[in-house]
Amino acid sequence: PQPAKAPAPVNLWASLTVSETVQIAEWLNQPSRGLNLTSATTATTTDNFIFHIEAWRPSKADALHYLESPNQSDLPERFARVTVQQGGRSTEEGGPAVTDYLVGPLPIGEKTSMRELTEIYHRPDIPFNARGFAIPTELTSLLMTYMPRLAHVTKDLFEGVAMGLENDTLIAGASGPLSFDGSFRRTWVSWRRNVPGPWLHPVNFFQYVDFSGSDERQWKLLKIVYNHQIFDTVEEFLEAYNTGTLRRLPSRPDQTEDTEWTTRHRPKTAPRDLDHLPGPRQVSFAGLRFRVNKPLQYVSWMGWGLYLGFDRDMGMSLWDIRFLGDRIAYEISPQEAMAQYAGNDPMQTSTAWLDRFFGMGSAVRDMIPGYDCPYEAVYLPATTYTSLGSISRERAICVFEHDTARPITRHTGYHDGEFGAVKGYILTVRSISTVGNYDYLVCFDYMFHTDGTIEVRVSASGYLQGGFWEPSQKGYGAAIRDTTMGSLHDHVINFKVDLDVVGTSNSLLYTHTDQEVVEQPWFDEDWGKTVIQQKITREIIETEDKAMLKYPHNFQGGYSFVNQDELNRWDAPRGYAIHPGYSPIVNTIVGSKRLLNNANWARYNLAVSRRKDTEPTSSSMWNMNLPGLPMVDFHKFFDGENITQQDLVAWVNVGMHHLPQAEDAPNTRTNLAASSFFLTPLNYFDADVSMDSLNAILLTSP
Amino acid sequence: PQPAKAPAPVNLWASLTVSETVQIAEWLNQPSRGLNLTSATTATTTDNFIFHIEAWRPSKADALHYLESPNQSDLPERFARVTVQQGGRSTEEGGPAVTDYLVGPLPIGEKTSMRELTEIYHRPDIPFNARGFAIPTELTSLLMTYMPRLAHVTKDLFEGVAMGLENDTLIAGASGPLSFDGSFRRTWVSWRRNVPGPWLHPVNFFQYVDFSGSDERQWKLLKIVYNHQIFDTVEEFLEAYNTGTLRRLPSRPDQTEDTEWTTRHRPKTAPRDLDHLPGPRQVSFAGLRFRVNKPLQYVSWMGWGLYLGFDRDMGMSLWDIRFLGDRIAYEISPQEAMAQYAGNDPMQTSTAWLDRFFGMGSAVRDMIPGYDCPYEAVYLPATTYTSLGSISRERAICVFEHDTARPITRHTGYHDGEFGAVKGYILTVRSISTVGNYDYLVCFDYMFHTDGTIEVRVSASGYLQGGFWEPSQKGYGAAIRDTTMGSLHDHVINFKVDLDVVGTSNSLLYTHTDQEVVEQPWFDEDWGKTVIQQKITREIIETEDKAMLKYPHNFQGGYSFVNQDELNRWDAPRGYAIHPGYSPIVNTIVGSKRLLNNANWARYNLAVSRRKDTEPTSSSMWNMNLPGLPMVDFHKFFDGENITQQDLVAWVNVGMHHLPQAEDAPNTRTNLAASSFFLTPLNYFDADVSMDSLNAILLTSP
Ligand SMILES: [Ca+2]
Ligand SMILES: [Ca+2]
Ligand SMILES: [Ca+2]
Ligand SMILES: [Ca+2]
Ligand SMILES: [Cu+2]
Ligand SMILES: [Cu+2]
Repeated sequence: PQPAKAPAPVNLWASLTVSETVQIAEWLNQPSRGLNLTSATTATTTDNFIFHIEAWRPSKADALHYLESPNQSDLPERFARVTVQQGGRSTEEGGPAVTDYLVGPLPIGEKTSMRELTEIYHRPDIPFNARGFAIPTELTSLLMTYMPRLAHVTKDLFEGVAMGLENDTLIAGASGPLSFDGSFRRTWVSWRRNVPGPWLHPVNFFQYVDFSGSDERQWKLLKIVYNHQIFDTVEEFLEAYNTGTLRRLPSRPDQTEDTEWTTRHRPKTAPRDLDHLPGPRQVSFAGLRFRVNKPLQYVSWMGWGLYLGFDRDMGMSLWDIRFLGDRIAYEISPQEAMAQYAGNDPMQTSTAWLDRFFGMGSAVRDMIPGYDCPYEAVYLPATTYTSLGSISRERAICVFEHDTARPITRHTGYHDGEFGAVKGYILTVRSISTVGNYDYLVCFDYMFHTDGTIEVRVSASGYLQGGFWEPSQKGYGAAIRDTTMGSLHDHVINFKVDLDVVGTSNSLLYTHTDQEVVEQPWFDEDWGKTVIQQKITREIIETEDKAMLKYPHNFQGGYSFVNQDELNRWDAPRGYAIHPGYSPIVNTIVGSKRLLNNANWARYNLAVSRRKDTEPTSSSMWNMNLPGLPMVDFHKFFDGENITQQDLVAWVNVGMHHLPQAEDAPNTRTNLAASSFFLTPLNYFDADVSMDSLNAILLTSP
Repeated sequence: PQPAKAPAPVNLWASLTVSETVQIAEWLNQPSRGLNLTSATTATTTDNFIFHIEAWRPSKADALHYLESPNQSDLPERFARVTVQQGGRSTEEGGPAVTDYLVGPLPIGEKTSMRELTEIYHRPDIPFNARGFAIPTELTSLLMTYMPRLAHVTKDLFEGVAMGLENDTLIAGASGPLSFDGSFRRTWVSWRRNVPGPWLHPVNFFQYVDFSGSDERQWKLLKIVYNHQIFDTVEEFLEAYNTGTLRRLPSRPDQTEDTEWTTRHRPKTAPRDLDHLPGPRQVSFAGLRFRVNKPLQYVSWMGWGLYLGFDRDMGMSLWDIRFLGDRIAYEISPQEAMAQYAGNDPMQTSTAWLDRFFGMGSAVRDMIPGYDCPYEAVYLPATTYTSLGSISRERAICVFEHDTARPITRHTGYHDGEFGAVKGYILTVRSISTVGNYDYLVCFDYMFHTDGTIEVRVSASGYLQGGFWEPSQKGYGAAIRDTTMGSLHDHVINFKVDLDVVGTSNSLLYTHTDQEVVEQPWFDEDWGKTVIQQKITREIIETEDKAMLKYPHNFQGGYSFVNQDELNRWDAPRGYAIHPGYSPIVNTIVGSKRLLNNANWARYNLAVSRRKDTEPTSSSMWNMNLPGLPMVDFHKFFDGENITQQDLVAWVNVGMHHLPQAEDAPNTRTNLAASSFFLTPLNYFDADVSMDSLNAILLTSP
């Protein structure tokens, strides 16, 4: 594509380069830092090591100042956020912990210093028990204290064993959250057959294990559950097995003979008519119409322009999004992805994933050209730091223009100038994240329209988190095989939408319609003087406590950001609406202990708060494990502040109630598993600006 | 495209040919029919003439019998429905009326006879006052009794006159419904400037006129309204004008100087970056992959196959829709399109359109290749009868395959067979109707997916029905110009969805999820024994009175047709779900007298009734004018019948609350003005069948 010209020559939200992270790591390793670090590649739980290094984004004030007149001298100082896992911290120092630091200014030099980063969190400490999985095999040693002893039993019951070897025929899954408030670290281990699509091959064998603290010698097995029978020790379980009192599961011929059904191999059916031909393919015969500046990570198309950012936790984010020269949004970025399960087994019923924990950015893989994005798409790279080395993906992001195959406006008319159509094109910016720790795939699409509309859409595919199917599971999902089920769950995904509508002074407009009964003087007895009709009420929501919102009943009205001081030509305050798209749902469950305070954004379709540098995000990677006392407690953003003509941010959800069905196997279909919202001009312009398209036709009436 | 092979060589739902309608008209004109017909081209209100002739579709039993073994001998007899407008019927015979007849069998021959068609209606007569606009100038003579007398006034007030001439500078619009129960025919006339986009140039001048019965001499002006002042006669109005007591509207410079804003002419703005290039275009380099049999009006693609029908009232319909060899639906067809307005003037506040009245089929125009449908689209013709001659449109329907630019399933995995993607293609069947009598445009899309899903989507564009903007209108819309507003209204569009899921014996399954609090034995004090989680309840709705449905709160569950006697391999009843898409709304207003009983389907997201040949449709063209006593009273379908393992039909709505905004000018944008629902397999298959696509990729894990 052609090179894009950005409003400023520096991407303020760019990731650190690999050499920057190497420099920072070296600086942190210097003894004078006093961090007593070990290399992450060799570290054990009781060591201190660097978990993460990434760019710390500038304050909005600094960024806006620079963007206004992008002089080198006004460039905000660059900082990094560093997360150190301190398993080696002594009891006197407070014991094992995780600590976030701010390091800067960058590049490393005389003036570089570090300090603890605490102002964005709602508790002073990051509990060690809430830490990320830096050491992938963290649990293995514990599992190996009992699984080899049970090998003859698991071989008999499940035709599989786990010996801690490469060729293990059983592999472990684990539930989350791992803790309530950081005082412990425990999980339900669920065993699966080590075959393609293992998530669909659970064997219905669970252990509850405690791996609190840094001392592995204290870690222990708490419970074994097999076929609804509960044992406190390995011995009790073995005794039941040996004495024959164990009630065994029915045999599972469907699970052992054939595992093709959990692969993506093509079924041996006859091809469909004409499917041997390639399908239609989009071609820009005169060249691509969008521009991409790869080094700067800047994209522009048809009056739109935006910078891209990327981070470990949530992947791609969009910055300084402008349309026809004016900033529409300062930031649009995913914040967290929740998946809360239900079931009649210990694993599903105790699982409430918050995928940020696993790093949805580091889980971004290279997309498949022609399949994940059209052949014409242009790819952008992303790099994420991991404690085992930086990972670069050349095709982490794709950008493409697409014909919607539907005019954006059209009319058949008879007067001169009435008859014509404007073609509907959109620019899509996409990233796909496959969260490695379990099974799901999320496709983030930002779709830009020529009228100023953005649709933000998430779609899901990948493997279900399967359970063992038996009649008592009927309320919690559906059979997808004789003895495998898909488990009922809700997905809710939160976005930060920092709209700036004609500047940062914005108010939250709630528009709603209701039925009125009104007498009108011009009517007579034939119809009666009274009319029942709709009426619009427009009100400004003035404080944050009234800004935790659901879409109104029957979608009668909606929410928008307006600048009350900036009117369009017809005296309406200029605004942008947040409009529901596919599947506008919220989390079904309220009050679950496993999601008590760590994901309260999921209760609303959207919520609007004052925008603050100290509230950069609605979640944190540790939130999953701290439902009782989270690092970021979303409800604390809503402290009654006034939100009229302020810099506001909307926290907007998409989601899906996932009631599994046979057609979820092998993988969920993105066409139904999709949810979206629109950001769309609302009296922002004086008329529809997509009319200025040259890809339009005007006809003389027929 | 390649020729499609249909399951039977005759399209049972095909329109009549022009020669067939000519034959039928000749037969009806024979004196022995006793209809005393006049040619419609010269007919006046007091004459009898043929309003409409169209194919009458066979009974479902006959059709299924033929489709099972399509022998010529089992071909259902062919009939026509004929509507005769009988303005000349004497008082002794009951006075002027409209009558529907069944004529057949066809072709016209010895055995052909006619009888009144009444069994599909809920009242015995079609009132003459509810009749269609067969004579386009029906109102003109009445308007001309007073408008020329007011010419000097309208010239002064609005710079326009209506003299009944070609170069009139004012043209009339009218409100609907025209009657409550057929006892009168009255409308509010609203005057507009006769310029491009006249709907956006109302002058705020209204008359209420009575044109009941067939005797034009009885027709009269009842009321004049100007700027909220009400006059019973022309004389009163003239007196107020002459004496200067008339309170005049403010001057409207925005309405007189420049009418460019209501055209689709490109604004004089600089082109957007690279917009001088054509956008991307979809090309099937190896040829089209769908098949079309134009004479038969049969379409097939990737295992899908369907017949097309077409009629005056609602245009395109889909019949015998099969997927992978099995019938999924017998019929999917639009039934009615409602638009109910609100306002503070006599016109908007009294308008509740039911567009079937105007003939959404006869309002289908030729689509614009490359703009209304992609360049590769294949067009199908449609012919509709009008009393002034048949109209054929060569490009009434288009069919095209489209790359959704998103895989339908994909996964990044590490085991063999996990990593791959299947491309997402859809086949779209489209028709666009521009309802001539007023301003709106509706695009009907049926989108077929490779997994068995159909999305039915309606999008709207075209001109708003404008009102005169003044501050007292604030609750009823928004200014789109200094003195023009868009008026608040709801659109609801009803579809008949006759799903046949593994045969016609189907039941209505209501699946819903709720929160449960449950104790589970494997939990301990750390989290507590009690879990709050989701649970699914599945229930069969057994009678029609419980089958008038809204989507559950927060979309927690949904509705599907299942065959309880046909289980998939995992013992789930095979089903198809009706799943909400964009904008799943119902009509805001309940109980309006102008929509009292003629569109009660609009109260629900969907409703399910026993399928009957005597209930072929939820509306009729006359329903608009009979809110008090409609021809088809939807609620009468719901008479408490049992709906378990019966042939069921779902009446499903799409819709949109249209709160106008500046960006609706000149035309509404289809991207936001869209609504849809999905029909999608629910345990219908044993697994996802889209996996059999050859347009797929399987990779070795990276
Ligand atoms: Ca606050
Ligand atoms: Ca803002
Ligand atoms: Ca019934
Ligand atoms: Ca049926
Ligand atoms: Cu899911
Ligand atoms: Cu509308």
